[in-house]
Amino acid sequence: MDASLRGISSPARLAAVGEAISHEELALATRNHGLPLEALRYDVTPPGLHYVLVHYDIPAADPDTWQLTVGGMVQDPLSLRVEALRALPARTVRVTMECAGNGRARLTPRPVSQPWLVEAVGTAEWTGVPLRTLLADAGVTQGASEVVFTGADHGVERGVEQDYQRALPLAVATGEDPPVLVAYEMNGQPLPPQHGQPLRLVVPGWYGMAHVKWLREITVVDRPFTGFQQSVAYRCRQTADDPGEPVDRMRPRALLAPPGFPDFMSRTRVVDAGSVTLTGRAWSGFAPVTQVMVSDDDGRTWTDAEVDPVDGHRWGWQAWRAIWTATPGEHVLTARAYDADGHAQPVVQPWNRGGFGNNLAQRVPVHCR
Amino acid sequence: MDASLRGISSPARLAAVGEAISHEELALATRNHGLPLEALRYDVTPPGLHYVLVHYDIPAADPDTWQLTVGGMVQDPLSLRVEALRALPARTVRVTMECAGNGRARLTPRPVSQPWLVEAVGTAEWTGVPLRTLLADAGVTQGASEVVFTGADHGVERGVEQDYQRALPLAVATGEDPPVLVAYEMNGQPLPPQHGQPLRLVVPGWYGMAHVKWLREITVVDRPFTGFQQSVAYRCRQTADDPGEPVDRMRPRALLAPPGFPDFMSRTRVVDAGSVTLTGRAWSGFAPVTQVMVSDDDGRTWTDAEVDPVDGHRWGWQAWRAIWTATPGEHVLTARAYDADGHAQPVVQPWNRGGFGNNLAQRVPVHCR
Repeated sequence: MDASLRGISSPARLAAVGEAISHEELALATRNHGLPLEALRYDVTPPGLHYVLVHYDIPAADPDTWQLTVGGMVQDPLSLRVEALRALPARTVRVTMECAGNGRARLTPRPVSQPWLVEAVGTAEWTGVPLRTLLADAGVTQGASEVVFTGADHGVERGVEQDYQRALPLAVATGEDPPVLVAYEMNGQPLPPQHGQPLRLVVPGWYGMAHVKWLREITVVDRPFTGFQQSVAYRCRQTADDPGEPVDRMRPRALLAPPGFPDFMSRTRVVDAGSVTLTGRAWSGFAPVTQVMVSDDDGRTWTDAEVDPVDGHRWGWQAWRAIWTATPGEHVLTARAYDADGHAQPVVQPWNRGGFGNNLAQRVPVHCR
Repeated sequence: MDASLRGISSPARLAAVGEAISHEELALATRNHGLPLEALRYDVTPPGLHYVLVHYDIPAADPDTWQLTVGGMVQDPLSLRVEALRALPARTVRVTMECAGNGRARLTPRPVSQPWLVEAVGTAEWTGVPLRTLLADAGVTQGASEVVFTGADHGVERGVEQDYQRALPLAVATGEDPPVLVAYEMNGQPLPPQHGQPLRLVVPGWYGMAHVKWLREITVVDRPFTGFQQSVAYRCRQTADDPGEPVDRMRPRALLAPPGFPDFMSRTRVVDAGSVTLTGRAWSGFAPVTQVMVSDDDGRTWTDAEVDPVDGHRWGWQAWRAIWTATPGEHVLTARAYDADGHAQPVVQPWNRGGFGNNLAQRVPVHCR
């Protein structure tokens, strides 16, 4: 740690009881953004509506001169321009991506960081080169165990100056479940600046922190990577000195596209009495979603929604719908997802000091007239 | 006012002394988003980085069947599909657009609404049909005085259920300063959903509330429009019963692209000692920016920056730069814009109950090492 940075960079902390959102948290919320929930209507999220979280600054990148290197424990280190990547066999994967910190601002006590409510998600079609192709071309040598990915975004976090870096176990990096990509297109267009222009990693099924943006270095190593984002941040810890569990695959979540229309300030929804079709999306990084249940009484009683099967897009969200008979008065709608691996979305908050993987069910207050 | 909506929709209010950002303000901040300030580097803001403010929901629009009507006090009412608009002579204008509420969350006392700091801005190339062309085709009749624009976004605000509506004086609607457009493209692409897909009004030089999105109706009238967004919201008032002044053209503002790199949480910048080129943008809806001054001591002393001339894009922002000799320690950078009409950006907060037109100079804390 650079001692001169202590004054501007603080350790992780929890908000005090009753402490409201700070100016610092607000500054992150005005920069980064979630998916406006009505945009759950689109199978693939249009540009600009997909959630964005940038740790430091969006780097100034020139796609024409950008170089990606593949080095470390390989026989033939590579240095590739975007054009060279585009010449290799490509793959397109529809991927639902969620920030690991989604839901953080609803936690009690609240970890002080990017203050997401429930909206840090989006689905895109990513096109690129399978990572396994690049690693095979470079020739991973005996004894390698992990692959480290370095982005061009540079900053300080809790006193540690760094380029953003994350690692994957070699088995994941070279595996097919999920199919890891070095992507150069999002929804058929070159990556926009905030999504990693010109190159990013895409790790379908994993929370967003794994999808390293502005990717410039891939390094094969033979020991556990202990960089800040791997061993300090993005761990599920109950106490400050708990080593914690790594954050990886997305836990199941269902989101409801709020029905009717909103009040500007409270975002409470207004619907007319009668039959209302509730629609939404659900996903899990572990396995397909097999069931979604909805409730109109804040989780006291539940009924089954109809859930679309995976239908060719294992790594994208699944649509669901349910008919609700709205009666005049105040209601709280909520939904829960269950996946084929037996994971169920909780209705009591899971909690950890970083506010990661919090898939507590969404609550949508509705006024029916 | 619909009495049944009172429970979900509150009057405008000011935050109490010491009252922090509420859950409701945060919900708006996570939906809407500003320009990450490093994106001031782009002459034209790339898709997804331009600020977005949506009052209600982004409507589900089908561009193929969308109809725009021109009616009211006209000889020949029109009903036009997007295709028909595309067949008319087009004009492209580079426009810097800023939310009228930019800066609101820095005010004391703070008006409770979308809590912008300084980032609610962006610059795009809008392509469309000059509004005067459509009004001439329809033939405005004698006695007309205003033109009302109705969008498809529907919601409740302070108890009033409404489609979003705003009006322009007829002289502005048919004038050339600014050139008002019915736009169907942003940066050469069809409008994305959050920017008005498929049609929006563009009123260069005016704050964002005038640029009605999801435009479906243009109505020529012969008396002052008194709709909610015209006579209740978007007025500069000092007291609740003050009728207030309308909000229209953007006041001058300079923004600095924060130099160096940030701390994740505090957003404080880190630079190395030595010569640092400060860059930014400046704009005014009244007249070209003629001067930008910068300060490295929180506004105690100022020096002139070099400002680019307008150079063909009167309605777009102007780039500026200044050399700063950074010395170790803590600094607060700030910048002020002045326009050719004699407007100067204030260093003491302007204040009104809605938090509109607040062009108080930005502050950028920098740690030099």
